[in-house]
Amino acid sequence: MKTVYLDNNATTRVAPEVVDAMVPYFSELYGNPSSAHRFGGQVAGKLNEARERVAALLGAEPGEILFTSCGTESDNTAVMSALATNPGKRHVVTSRVEHPAIRTLGQHLAERGYEVAEVPVDGEGMLDMDRYAGSLRPDTAVVSLMWANNETGVIFPVEEAARMARDQEILFHTDAVQIAGKVPIRLKDSAIDMLSISGHKLHAPKGIGVLYVRKGTKFSPYLIGGHQERGRRGGTENTASIIGLGKACELAGANMERENTEVRRLRDKLETGLTDRIPNSKVNGGDAKRLPNTTSISFEFVEGESILLMMDEFGICASSGSACTSGSLQPSHVLRAMGIPFTMAHGSIRFSLSVYNTEEEIDFVIDKLPPIIERLRSLSPYWDPSKAA
Amino acid sequence: MKTVYLDNNATTRVAPEVVDAMVPYFSELYGNPSSAHRFGGQVAGKLNEARERVAALLGAEPGEILFTSCGTESDNTAVMSALATNPGKRHVVTSRVEHPAIRTLGQHLAERGYEVAEVPVDGEGMLDMDRYAGSLRPDTAVVSLMWANNETGVIFPVEEAARMARDQEILFHTDAVQIAGKVPIRLKDSAIDMLSISGHKLHAPKGIGVLYVRKGTKFSPYLIGGHQERGRRGGTENTASIIGLGKACELAGANMERENTEVRRLRDKLETGLTDRIPNSKVNGGDAKRLPNTTSISFEFVEGESILLMMDEFGICASSGSACTSGSLQPSHVLRAMGIPFTMAHGSIRFSLSVYNTEEEIDFVIDKLPPIIERLRSLSPYWDPSKAA
Repeated sequence: MKTVYLDNNATTRVAPEVVDAMVPYFSELYGNPSSAHRFGGQVAGKLNEARERVAALLGAEPGEILFTSCGTESDNTAVMSALATNPGKRHVVTSRVEHPAIRTLGQHLAERGYEVAEVPVDGEGMLDMDRYAGSLRPDTAVVSLMWANNETGVIFPVEEAARMARDQEILFHTDAVQIAGKVPIRLKDSAIDMLSISGHKLHAPKGIGVLYVRKGTKFSPYLIGGHQERGRRGGTENTASIIGLGKACELAGANMERENTEVRRLRDKLETGLTDRIPNSKVNGGDAKRLPNTTSISFEFVEGESILLMMDEFGICASSGSACTSGSLQPSHVLRAMGIPFTMAHGSIRFSLSVYNTEEEIDFVIDKLPPIIERLRSLSPYWDPSKAA
Repeated sequence: MKTVYLDNNATTRVAPEVVDAMVPYFSELYGNPSSAHRFGGQVAGKLNEARERVAALLGAEPGEILFTSCGTESDNTAVMSALATNPGKRHVVTSRVEHPAIRTLGQHLAERGYEVAEVPVDGEGMLDMDRYAGSLRPDTAVVSLMWANNETGVIFPVEEAARMARDQEILFHTDAVQIAGKVPIRLKDSAIDMLSISGHKLHAPKGIGVLYVRKGTKFSPYLIGGHQERGRRGGTENTASIIGLGKACELAGANMERENTEVRRLRDKLETGLTDRIPNSKVNGGDAKRLPNTTSISFEFVEGESILLMMDEFGICASSGSACTSGSLQPSHVLRAMGIPFTMAHGSIRFSLSVYNTEEEIDFVIDKLPPIIERLRSLSPYWDPSKAA
């Protein structure tokens, strides 16, 4: 059975060019870049090249790029560094729709005596900017807001939010895991102090991430050990994956236009195709500015898990909510924060595309999903076809 | 030029079998193991297999294995978890010869009001067990002692040290990064509560580590995010590297006898060959129980960095001290803790072998190094050939 992979916000295929770039660094050029000999030292040069490629994608300087093991480590490091370097400030601002790497950390901090404000969003998933402005206080150590939501693709105005934080001398971090590589980023001209990205969301492998730290930002390491990353992150460099991430960032830069034309067109076709054919369905955050590759669609009176199961029979891979919170029977905290009614939120499916998706795959889903929803609704005690809208 | 790689305590060649095991998980089976669809779910099964293989090497249960991004993360997590779960205890016991992942963390903790005792070692690098016993206190939260030293290969009696800690209800962690795969470990019958290993020291890739946490041990996560690793470590699983590490642990189990016969024989030959041919040379910790693959040899009145540079001309890769502390002009803190005189410590070279080394390579080093030392000494104002011993 062919796999139709529409779950690219959970993880992506590693680009074959990235694998090719990585493989020599396993069994041939396996030296430790910190070693004094040339066999190790030659790898250090390749790490510098990768750092330059990541910096180029973000409009940053190579010295501002710190390699970590994942988006979660980057997010944790950013917030914990801000708290460690501002010991007198014990207030943190975030939003109600963050990834668990920030949201669970916030709960952890709240249990340890920090005050954590979660700014609400409106029905389209947009940040309430008035509430955000009101949440900033003299004792706020750090703001952490995701740039694009992993479930709905809704894009927050983080540049504006960062300027507001800077005006009050508050550090600003953004989780850019979902947006990096899809929308141009130019940190040089921005007020963002720290930014997280994750390799496996942009066709690099799992287990590699980046924390951008603006030059001059006070920083306290989270993983404490050797002198690696100029003393900012202990642990032997994950050379193959860093080199792979560099290649992936280069590819992402080259593919960005395609993301915003071809991928967007396929996403729009999928969205329209499904909502036109399926009554009582709605795009979550459909009126907001969104990532070009993501759509979250609610199908009223059906269970998301059942839809996934039946799509899986056709090899169609998608998600209800985030992979990082799956296993929970609660509907997504993102959709709940948007005030989406329970009967809709429970039947929400996230489709997330990549440059590897084809028109044929989209047509296949538009063909297969409507009868699945119809069948599931026929089994639902809540569904009344006469009320179809 | 052929590379003679004798720096396996810095990092190892990824075994070709390990690369073969990993590669399918980049561009083909790239699903997220947390996903609800089978494409992701099938990877979760492979992670379980890897967990079983790691557990088998350590004589542990799969549920006690937690995957991290490196030895440093494992070490940091163990100590920070012990402190978080014992908030009333603010005393930490470690040794003077630990890896920076523990030593620098200890300094960090000391700056934050914790009391950190560094137990001394004797001239052979052995832990002073009387001083160790005396360092344990009612307010000791955790002991962290490395099992085998990365520079000298000297093996600490951690089983005995762990029993002494347990008798006083103190958590015991060991950094087993250098010993895992070289000496049998059976955690089932041990008093060790937590243990760190690092993939890239046993022919798995860089960027993957393990923290063993004994069943029933109170635990507090260090990377906070999603539900991965049963809530004990947030962040999408590094699937390819976990699978690679599983394979590497299987290979390490199969190769362990060779490590203790063939590798040991080559190490001994190198050691004897060099110390017989080079006057005023001495094996550091040579009278202690040591790893089979490691030798640290001091060559009096020469600079380690100069030796490395000249060996590098012949493609011979070794190390002065640890790669994690290289760049420092200080002689190794390990050799200083052993009380090795400055004129010896400064000219110390660590050779660390693996199953990939050959007799021919060892003969090559025994042939090339004596004239290098002789030449360097001829340039040294401190060397007096009439005093050669």
